[in-house]
Amino acid sequence: MLRATRVLFSASLLNKSLPASAVLHHTKPADTVKPAELFGSAKKAILIGVPGAFTPGCSKTHVPSYLEHYDKLKAKGVDLIGCVSVNDAFVMDAWGKDLDVQDKIMMLADPQGKMVKELGLDFDASAALGGHRSKRFALVLENGKITKEYVEPNNTGLSVTLAENVLKEL
Amino acid sequence: MLRATRVLFSASLLNKSLPASAVLHHTKPADTVKPAELFGSAKKAILIGVPGAFTPGCSKTHVPSYLEHYDKLKAKGVDLIGCVSVNDAFVMDAWGKDLDVQDKIMMLADPQGKMVKELGLDFDASAALGGHRSKRFALVLENGKITKEYVEPNNTGLSVTLAENVLKEL
Repeated sequence: MLRATRVLFSASLLNKSLPASAVLHHTKPADTVKPAELFGSAKKAILIGVPGAFTPGCSKTHVPSYLEHYDKLKAKGVDLIGCVSVNDAFVMDAWGKDLDVQDKIMMLADPQGKMVKELGLDFDASAALGGHRSKRFALVLENGKITKEYVEPNNTGLSVTLAENVLKEL
Repeated sequence: MLRATRVLFSASLLNKSLPASAVLHHTKPADTVKPAELFGSAKKAILIGVPGAFTPGCSKTHVPSYLEHYDKLKAKGVDLIGCVSVNDAFVMDAWGKDLDVQDKIMMLADPQGKMVKELGLDFDASAALGGHRSKRFALVLENGKITKEYVEPNNTGLSVTLAENVLKEL
């Protein structure tokens, strides 16, 4: 029996920053964002990674958990929430509108999966989704340093990375 | 000056069928479709290819042109219209709902781009969209054989592949 508590598969990301070379897209490909800078400028931030825009688990449970608990996360001092996926910016933007994330969650595209690969958080989803995608994860960052990492044991499940679990240790 | 008339970049697809080995996804990855069989069973069909779900040109002009001219296409004997993109099935399904294609256009996912590559209709869109994508094209098929092919000269433009142009020669 797996307990849905915090699961650390590797401690390798703790106390690290997001890759300095990484460039993500926001709303459209020309709207580039350097995540190391973006998250470095936030006192306390959460970056969640998802296997795929518009997939059921990501759309019905994972991202909605952060919207549902948004006020509690803010009350704990979280001043930035980002959501990254190996999709293109047009798809991520459309998905954010569909989920009505407004300005609560910043939708970020890692179209070639370079950042999630550099973080070691990719997995092979070729057959279903066309290529390597992001494992479902949640990272807590303080002043740009990763202080907590949650990764779903089977890559795509919905347990440790949900907002209600992350909230417990904030 | 380019004239927006029918442009054949290669005659290689004429009189051929869609690749027998190709498998596409419809609505979800488990909902597989063999395009050679699907289009082979239609007397007259159109398959359009697009660079990306939710991208502006595909969403505002290309696919809508087939919805706008749907009745005229039906009157010309077209009994199947498919739209394929190198996106996953969840994204294609969401996009089809967003465009309200109903049962007029069958949204088909070629997540690894295998079919469009085999047709020679892919191009490198890595920087903007993450990988190889489909050129914008329109193929007319009769009893499964390609009888007309239209490919945008610059891969993504909106001229020869629009429904109003294809209609002229149906």
